Amino acid sequence: MVLLTPGPTPIHPRVQAALSQPMRGHLDPEVLQTNRRIREYLKLLFDPGEGALLAAMPGSGSLGMEAGLTNLAGEGDAVLLLVNGTFGERMVEIAHAYNLDYTVLRSEPGHPIDPAQVEKALSQRTYKLVALVHGETSTGVLNPAREIAQQVADHGALFMLDAVTTAAMMPLSLRQMRVDYAFTGSQKCLSAPPGLAPFALSQRGREMLGQVRGWYSDLSRVAVYWEQEGYFCTSPVLLHFALEEALKLALEEGLENRRQRAERLYGAVLSLLEELGFSAYATAGARLPTVLVVRPPEGYSEAEIRKGLYARGVAVAGGIGPTAGKVLRLGLMGEGARAAHYRVFFKALGEVLKKRGLEEAFSERARGLEAESHERLPA
Amino acid sequence: MVLLTPGPTPIHPRVQAALSQPMRGHLDPEVLQTNRRIREYLKLLFDPGEGALLAAMPGSGSLGMEAGLTNLAGEGDAVLLLVNGTFGERMVEIAHAYNLDYTVLRSEPGHPIDPAQVEKALSQRTYKLVALVHGETSTGVLNPAREIAQQVADHGALFMLDAVTTAAMMPLSLRQMRVDYAFTGSQKCLSAPPGLAPFALSQRGREMLGQVRGWYSDLSRVAVYWEQEGYFCTSPVLLHFALEEALKLALEEGLENRRQRAERLYGAVLSLLEELGFSAYATAGARLPTVLVVRPPEGYSEAEIRKGLYARGVAVAGGIGPTAGKVLRLGLMGEGARAAHYRVFFKALGEVLKKRGLEEAFSERARGLEAESHERLPA
Repeated sequence: MVLLTPGPTPIHPRVQAALSQPMRGHLDPEVLQTNRRIREYLKLLFDPGEGALLAAMPGSGSLGMEAGLTNLAGEGDAVLLLVNGTFGERMVEIAHAYNLDYTVLRSEPGHPIDPAQVEKALSQRTYKLVALVHGETSTGVLNPAREIAQQVADHGALFMLDAVTTAAMMPLSLRQMRVDYAFTGSQKCLSAPPGLAPFALSQRGREMLGQVRGWYSDLSRVAVYWEQEGYFCTSPVLLHFALEEALKLALEEGLENRRQRAERLYGAVLSLLEELGFSAYATAGARLPTVLVVRPPEGYSEAEIRKGLYARGVAVAGGIGPTAGKVLRLGLMGEGARAAHYRVFFKALGEVLKKRGLEEAFSERARGLEAESHERLPA
Repeated sequence: MVLLTPGPTPIHPRVQAALSQPMRGHLDPEVLQTNRRIREYLKLLFDPGEGALLAAMPGSGSLGMEAGLTNLAGEGDAVLLLVNGTFGERMVEIAHAYNLDYTVLRSEPGHPIDPAQVEKALSQRTYKLVALVHGETSTGVLNPAREIAQQVADHGALFMLDAVTTAAMMPLSLRQMRVDYAFTGSQKCLSAPPGLAPFALSQRGREMLGQVRGWYSDLSRVAVYWEQEGYFCTSPVLLHFALEEALKLALEEGLENRRQRAERLYGAVLSLLEELGFSAYATAGARLPTVLVVRPPEGYSEAEIRKGLYARGVAVAGGIGPTAGKVLRLGLMGEGARAAHYRVFFKALGEVLKKRGLEEAFSERARGLEAESHERLPA
């Protein structure tokens, strides 16, 4: 199966090998050594400045989201949630569950959050925390995180960034952007197995941690394990081994190189899809290079195409939330962002749409990307 | 490294092979099929009666604990926590974090919870939920769960059982015992990798679920994924593959056979340790067969022995909470409960204590167990 969903992503053989090591205890000296290396790599990935907490929570990216909202804000703290899709709405669900004092600023699905509206909201009320999803996986929109982070910092609030589909596929400097907390999922742009939520919490964020409602998601407990090497809970040790190797692979390649790899492949895939009558869901100028969300051509349903592809060994996702039933979602994250995979995709798509020559047409426009893809892919 | 900590436990080659399958999406039909089989196996493991929710949470056993306390009780609901060690105290920490109206009934570490005291507490106040740790991993005590569950049911309260070190190594019938919620960790008696918390919630428990504070630990969301096959969060799919195989292995062997395997090995290990001057921490008659907690002989510190064993390739744990610095903790769970591993342990222990013939002495008293251990262990 060629896995082209927006997460999980195909696993590199080096990561698979790391995962297959014998089991160790969570406080075994070798595991603690792995954890120290993971923290060093996360420092390069997030660039959070001095004094930050760097770790991987034992759960999915959503746990990282819950931890950010509930550790940086408590009952009675004003929180501004910037929402334009399912993962933004997830922040609202969490804020609701924890009874936070939240305000929601929404923009239309498919369109990015407007910094002018954020500025207006920030000038009307004092917030402790502002939270934004960088790449909205449900719609394929890339939000203007840098500009908004700057506004938030200027107003003195904490800024939380859901970097689930962006971290490790594009350069990200929490320090320069003035982001206090960012998290991702191990199975997205890092192409490690799912089950860990790597994150960075700035020194300023740490200083503002309060009384946390929640035990498993309490970042001060997470810190006991990762910094003091004491006991918090049983970590998914094999996933740590895999994450370490995935981080190493990403940093060896370079984050800017990875961004270019995703963007160039995105361009090649979208241009051919557009010729076939597909259209991008996200508005031009605000497209997330790691998740391509497209409406199917006239006369086709997304389910028909998706099932046809699956029957031919290619897994892509359908829509979710505002895009449910309307689109296909294609991952271009980590090991998913390889031209070789998309050749298989276009071959299968040609069969589904009964069009000849798609694989060749794609190979033609992805020629410069092919060589690169063979460097790292197994035979 | 011979892994004899009280979790994680060594992984069976069949489980390792399952873990090494290619990545799939969490809603891939093959993964959903795996999940259905996991639920069938959990039904046999927990025997929760009709209408129960059977699933595995994407996190450690502690997440299963948090989910039980926060889904079955809300703010203002009276909760009785039965505590005699670190994992009992963890329930108190969680109840505190969520501001539950909790009462704690403690017994001395090393001693089981006294059902007479539970009866007294239940007659003094009406509780919505009573929670007990079946096998207290910090002290090696087995609590009288069956008797207490009966009392709780008679008083009409819900009963939650932490079955982290007991489920899959001894028969457990939630239906017969009248337990409403029980959970374990994948890396304990099941010998799967850590990262999942399998659980069962009875129909009665489901009917009493309320407004939950918490998002990731909300069992109604977990049910959406496992029962309705809808989206909750990205599951650690490879761990599902491994868990399925581990459950299959446990059920093939039979839970009563597994209990006997642990008990007989426990007896053989403890009797030799006692001759060497070690003594069991848990009071006689209340010893957990899956975690042997022993004080070292006069003149030795636990750290000295533990480090000496580790240097010789055998990992055991030190104490935790009330037993910190005082004991060694030896796991006899799942693939850890093999005489072959304990031969290596006694060989290393002989070197540390400078005593000859320990391996032979152990082999002698474990003779009946040896053949069995070779059936399943790789060369």
